Amino acid sequence: LLQALTKNENKVFRKAFLDMHFYDQAQFYLSLVPEQRQKLYQILDPHEVGDFFDTIEDDLPEMRELLLEMDTSYAASLLNSMFDDNAADILEHLPKDEVDRYLNLMDKADASQLRKLLHYDTETAGGIMTTDFITLQAELTVGEALTILKHEADEAETIYYVYLVNADQRLVGVITLRDLIVTDDDTKLATIMTAQVITASVHDEQADVAQKIRDYNFIALPVVDDQQRLVGIVTVDDVIEVIDDEAQADYSGLAGVDVEDVSDNPLKAASKRLPWLITLLFLGMSTATLINHYEDLLSEASILAVFISLITGTAGNAGTQSLAVAVRRLAFKGNDKPKLVRLVVSEILTGLVTGLITGLTIMLIVGFWKQNFALGLTIGLAMTAAITVANLAGSLIPMLMDKLGFDPAVASGPFITTLSDLTSVLIYFSIAQVFIHAFM
Amino acid sequence: LLQALTKNENKVFRKAFLDMHFYDQAQFYLSLVPEQRQKLYQILDPHEVGDFFDTIEDDLPEMRELLLEMDTSYAASLLNSMFDDNAADILEHLPKDEVDRYLNLMDKADASQLRKLLHYDTETAGGIMTTDFITLQAELTVGEALTILKHEADEAETIYYVYLVNADQRLVGVITLRDLIVTDDDTKLATIMTAQVITASVHDEQADVAQKIRDYNFIALPVVDDQQRLVGIVTVDDVIEVIDDEAQADYSGLAGVDVEDVSDNPLKAASKRLPWLITLLFLGMSTATLINHYEDLLSEASILAVFISLITGTAGNAGTQSLAVAVRRLAFKGNDKPKLVRLVVSEILTGLVTGLITGLTIMLIVGFWKQNFALGLTIGLAMTAAITVANLAGSLIPMLMDKLGFDPAVASGPFITTLSDLTSVLIYFSIAQVFIHAFM
Ligand SMILES: [Mg+2]
Ligand SMILES: [Mg+2]
Ligand SMILES: [Mg+2]
Ligand SMILES: [Mg+2]
Ligand SMILES: [Mg+2]
Ligand SMILES: [Mg+2]
Ligand SMILES: [Mg+2]
Ligand SMILES: [Mg+2]
Ligand SMILES: [Mg+2]
Ligand SMILES: [Mg+2]
Ligand SMILES: [Mg+2]
Ligand SMILES: [Mg+2]
Ligand SMILES: [Mg+2]
Repeated sequence: LLQALTKNENKVFRKAFLDMHFYDQAQFYLSLVPEQRQKLYQILDPHEVGDFFDTIEDDLPEMRELLLEMDTSYAASLLNSMFDDNAADILEHLPKDEVDRYLNLMDKADASQLRKLLHYDTETAGGIMTTDFITLQAELTVGEALTILKHEADEAETIYYVYLVNADQRLVGVITLRDLIVTDDDTKLATIMTAQVITASVHDEQADVAQKIRDYNFIALPVVDDQQRLVGIVTVDDVIEVIDDEAQADYSGLAGVDVEDVSDNPLKAASKRLPWLITLLFLGMSTATLINHYEDLLSEASILAVFISLITGTAGNAGTQSLAVAVRRLAFKGNDKPKLVRLVVSEILTGLVTGLITGLTIMLIVGFWKQNFALGLTIGLAMTAAITVANLAGSLIPMLMDKLGFDPAVASGPFITTLSDLTSVLIYFSIAQVFIHAFM
Repeated sequence: LLQALTKNENKVFRKAFLDMHFYDQAQFYLSLVPEQRQKLYQILDPHEVGDFFDTIEDDLPEMRELLLEMDTSYAASLLNSMFDDNAADILEHLPKDEVDRYLNLMDKADASQLRKLLHYDTETAGGIMTTDFITLQAELTVGEALTILKHEADEAETIYYVYLVNADQRLVGVITLRDLIVTDDDTKLATIMTAQVITASVHDEQADVAQKIRDYNFIALPVVDDQQRLVGIVTVDDVIEVIDDEAQADYSGLAGVDVEDVSDNPLKAASKRLPWLITLLFLGMSTATLINHYEDLLSEASILAVFISLITGTAGNAGTQSLAVAVRRLAFKGNDKPKLVRLVVSEILTGLVTGLITGLTIMLIVGFWKQNFALGLTIGLAMTAAITVANLAGSLIPMLMDKLGFDPAVASGPFITTLSDLTSVLIYFSIAQVFIHAFM
């Protein structure tokens, strides 16, 4: 294929290229060097390029350059021929003047459609919906509907769901193509439609839209505006991307680094990680200051230094577990306030149980190792208390963030472990101070 | 609705219940108490219950009890009327004798179909595919195909993709219902089919199947056996569950706790978390032993104890970031060996850069705080080295796991931080020993 392109066998290339799936076309296109891409623009019309551009992820960093290397009118017509959710996703990453340049070259109706889509927040139903859907009147028969579908299919992102609207563009029902196929041609749509339509509002968060499509096993979900008018649909393929993006964001939150924005360049990679690390370094400095405060105790009983990292480390591990459980639970909507209190109580109790068992274990180990059971008891007590407090922090912090309107998933594991270092050290030295004369 | 059920207004209940979406039916059903459910079994036939059972997640813990509370023949006929991927998912969680009891009550063909599905590994294409799909011969016309679809639709999980097979059941093409609708009735299927069919093998990992459906924006993907015969299809709704399950598994791996298997019962919750905690406690004990080994150094310079948790904590944070980045990168298939070496080199360099900057920061802080720049240099050097080593461990460990055939995503954050505690302490005291006469 590449050979056909470089040897200028345009007809051979064109046929073989267009025979591939759009996704494979896109992968091939993205593997080309600039001169080869210029040849491809000569051979394929913008509509054909738009078809496979629909399968390219919108956050591709080089997207802007790809459009700039084309004739402006070629790029505009390519964007015009894409499904408008995808075109909007590309445009929203471009500078304002470039957006205007492309929109001005499109036909008025399409451009104004795109402008509307660009107004919605990216992570809402409005931000992920497409306006390329099919509506019909409920008075039609199945046969008439199929004839209309046949002619309008090309413009729609899916024809598997057909939406029935009244004169005000308000949804009155939905019919699947499956319903149409199994029903006799002279049946009225109104008699077979599903009148209880599940919808999303343009302002709904994308995660909630995804959850609905997932629960109901839909291929698409209609989106209505504040006047209950049908303004778009969200399709399942875009919902998959939403689910993946949300999961990556949660994972990044827990890790304290954005795993979707990685770089092989150590300077760039370091610049992404340092803000968290340095912030936490200062939090860690308060732990160091606290230990410094106990210097007398430490020089009196230098054995205490031996167990600092064991206690802070174990409490940090427990706090991370607790954090992850709390974040996942908060992600399930429909959870109301009393359940959240129950979550915290349950985490404290879980912390107490894990703390007691871990504390008992370390008490015996230290007792036998150092032949000093008073020391063992001190370490064991400190461990139990430190784990319980870490569990409390691990569940309380995401809960508070949720209440304050922040995404609990950005509460990172590193933050919890660093915070728990502080509380653990405080607990450890307070307990040691009380028991020092027993174990020294 | 609940009122209608408890007041025995069976006809009212039946109509209102069946008017709801299957998912809402299931949610209502799951909210009932046992006696109410018994009433529902009287009012609805097993096929109607099967329809909404298809929307219940297969790993519902009480599924076994729900089936046991029904007449065995009612349960068998319910399972029979479900899509067979969902029925198989339920059966695979049941004891062998119960499975046999249900299968023996079904018709032979359906039972043997289910038995076959039960043989595949759960997390492969075979384990998530359904056999309720539609095949046609390529010699048919579009009109003939639509007539067949009309009659077979009821048996199929989707009719939006139709698979064309030859006499050996080998795939020769695929046609979407959209293609059928827009094409004239007397066109032969062979002339409009897509002959380059993207398929999965029954043995493919579910994550790879999901990625294919995601890349190509398919609604379903055909699955072939070792003889290239079409044996099933995987549908997009099941792929969404796969993507979510894989994401939850990765998140759980990083947190060191299974976030999908949570319990409000503190004893149960603790029993899930303790294995990791206790294992890591023993790893943490080696760090304690190591510090104990340096007791002389510590009593000579008790100031060293002040910075233990700062150095181990910061290195642990950096190691967690590095781990998360490495796990996500390894998740992208098609990455070959040289890239992995590059990943590790890039992580070491990133560790060096972050380490140097963090080290410099802490050197200045400690230098000014303690008015002791030799001590600052010691802490700064230790910090730099500890972070670099933590980054190395964070990327090397998932990479080794991947090479050894394990899922790198189970390499947990708590494990990396605990391991990095050990290396950090070793580095810290080794460096301190060299410089002790400079800063004391
Ligand atoms: Mg368009
Ligand atoms: Mg958008
Ligand atoms: Mg579902
Ligand atoms: Mg779309
Ligand atoms: Mg993504
Ligand atoms: Mg979220
Ligand atoms: Mg730590
Ligand atoms: Mg069946
Ligand atoms: Mg299965
Ligand atoms: Mg996609
Ligand atoms: Mg299924
Ligand atoms: Mg799940
Ligand atoms: Mg995985």
